[in-house]
Amino acid sequence: MRLAVIPGDGIGPEVVAEALKVLGEVVPTAETTNYDLGAARWHSTGELLPESVLGELRQHDAILLGAVGDPTVPSGILERGLLLRLRFELDHHVNLRPARLYPGVRGPLADSSEIDMVVVREGTEGPYAGNGGLLRKDTEHEIATEVSVNTAFGVRRVVTDAFNRAEARPRKHLTLLHKTNVLEYAGSLWSRIVEEVSLEHPEVTVAYSHVDAAMIHLVTDPSRFDVVVTDNLFGDIVTDLSAAVTGGIGLAASGNLDITRRNPSMFEPVHGSAPDIAGQGLADPTAAVLSVSLLLDHLGQKESARRIEASVAFDLATRDQASPGATHAIGDRLAALVSSNVRPVTQ
Amino acid sequence: MRLAVIPGDGIGPEVVAEALKVLGEVVPTAETTNYDLGAARWHSTGELLPESVLGELRQHDAILLGAVGDPTVPSGILERGLLLRLRFELDHHVNLRPARLYPGVRGPLADSSEIDMVVVREGTEGPYAGNGGLLRKDTEHEIATEVSVNTAFGVRRVVTDAFNRAEARPRKHLTLLHKTNVLEYAGSLWSRIVEEVSLEHPEVTVAYSHVDAAMIHLVTDPSRFDVVVTDNLFGDIVTDLSAAVTGGIGLAASGNLDITRRNPSMFEPVHGSAPDIAGQGLADPTAAVLSVSLLLDHLGQKESARRIEASVAFDLATRDQASPGATHAIGDRLAALVSSNVRPVTQ
Ligand SMILES: CC(C)[C@H](C(=O)O)[C@@H](O)C(=O)O
Ligand SMILES: CC(C)[C@H](C(=O)O)[C@@H](O)C(=O)O
Repeated sequence: MRLAVIPGDGIGPEVVAEALKVLGEVVPTAETTNYDLGAARWHSTGELLPESVLGELRQHDAILLGAVGDPTVPSGILERGLLLRLRFELDHHVNLRPARLYPGVRGPLADSSEIDMVVVREGTEGPYAGNGGLLRKDTEHEIATEVSVNTAFGVRRVVTDAFNRAEARPRKHLTLLHKTNVLEYAGSLWSRIVEEVSLEHPEVTVAYSHVDAAMIHLVTDPSRFDVVVTDNLFGDIVTDLSAAVTGGIGLAASGNLDITRRNPSMFEPVHGSAPDIAGQGLADPTAAVLSVSLLLDHLGQKESARRIEASVAFDLATRDQASPGATHAIGDRLAALVSSNVRPVTQ
Repeated sequence: MRLAVIPGDGIGPEVVAEALKVLGEVVPTAETTNYDLGAARWHSTGELLPESVLGELRQHDAILLGAVGDPTVPSGILERGLLLRLRFELDHHVNLRPARLYPGVRGPLADSSEIDMVVVREGTEGPYAGNGGLLRKDTEHEIATEVSVNTAFGVRRVVTDAFNRAEARPRKHLTLLHKTNVLEYAGSLWSRIVEEVSLEHPEVTVAYSHVDAAMIHLVTDPSRFDVVVTDNLFGDIVTDLSAAVTGGIGLAASGNLDITRRNPSMFEPVHGSAPDIAGQGLADPTAAVLSVSLLLDHLGQKESARRIEASVAFDLATRDQASPGATHAIGDRLAALVSSNVRPVTQ
């Protein structure tokens, strides 16, 4: 297994180190190569993602990213020039974001009923296409447009992936989130494709929810969701909420997948680089470790993936929630649990 | 005061009746005219909003709407043909949505710290402009686009309104919600205009939050928000969440305002027509009553508006939360409180 690692900025390198520690327990032969992309490189060389680096990244089986970003970099530079560019160049059309309320974790909701959902967010089109412009800038008559681009090709592949995932889960339930009553063109395309693909998956029950109504459901009745499929921007918004109600982005993992495997997929914790706590051992590496679990699952190492997730679940259920320990201590615990082949408490 | 009333479908007529009962206590001379727009009219005549009705609506000081919609009407018909058409025809550029956690109300969050915010949502452009299309429909090469249209004119008037509201509130704080790191064109326009208008309001502190991060804040630290200004679609999404965390859309009121007063503004509870509970006296008219408070405030009757809100606050603090009473009983209580000139418990 050849892994490209982008530790990134702030707490990125710290959480990645622990994630690799845990990976080492299940795939001791994994080869890793570090790439110093992020705020530091941009500051020193002005580079975001040189073609040569992109070419090298393509030679790997997968990419693990810590976090990039720093308040000294103007907003949008790293996002568009590095993170989104990677998603688009490597055709990461499925942005996978599981949200599970693990036993022992207290989320912000008073009624902590079970939450175990996965959002399949489209990753390469929609309002993220970069399609738009400014007309008559800096005048009273300025117009700014943003074009959401949705293709049958792009929607079908992510919807198909979502149905496949739903079919493999016990509840076999899929919810399309959109805003079909207002965005009639994109809404029509998404609805028709969900209907079409559903014919090939008669065992999967299908629901639809407007994205605004889903906000309410996520805080009052989140257990209704199993697999959720949605567009790039709605997915961005809804996954921060699904992460928040399951204990926060500090625990949320994500995968940017090229389902065809033509390009390496990329795995990253949803949290940012948190420069305010960087270098102090305060960061929780759990989301990075869970991202490794997603990585292994994607590469077909299902058993190792499950073992890591079970170790995280065990640790979350038994840790001192108020002071879970330093970054490396949590990593050590998780590595020990993984190597001891802990009996899964959660499945 | 000449009021156009659109009772609408489902529980709409029931909650409107109570809202008018309460209005009668403070403005006994209000003249009301009913307009039977909604699902029933569409079913019997195919009409959504005839020009003649629109012309009559324009002759009023304000419009009170209950709720429209019915499962027998295909999604989008009433939304685009009636609700959004009214907003666009009557230039309702400020969509005002206060969210306040009233004492006594239990929201879904475990930590019920104070929430008292108001979202100023743009109402006449953005992704709601209806601008987009389908190309190569029903083929493998289909493309659906949705264009978010943002004008300096449209953004400035709503940002100006938001600053005015922030300045009039004790905390004088304004947050712009957007997704400037991805939607660079619209994000640039919104950011520049907020910056410009802020120069005229030195007392107002200004913050920015990405819309996805705001999802997290709204469930973990909602008290950070005072006035929020945002675009039409982000506003749609965020106001369902702000309503949810303050006790649900059953309590949420909204105003669709033409700030210039060239057209009547429209006030409506955020909840829908809830056909499943219609006609049983189960609907809570509180959101409709609060909409009347917004209506009076908009028409300059600040004292009456405050009296109604204070009555609602008193009722919410003292009612039996599990069984607050039948629709008309709640209306009777609120009317009695308003007429007794209840001492405000909340301000
Ligand atoms: C950093 C930003 C570009 C990114 C996005 O909008 O997709 C982030 O919010 C995420 O969800 O991964
Ligand atoms: C019914 C629908 C068109 C409407 C909207 O999207 O604005 C509703 O969700 C709202 O928030 O008032």
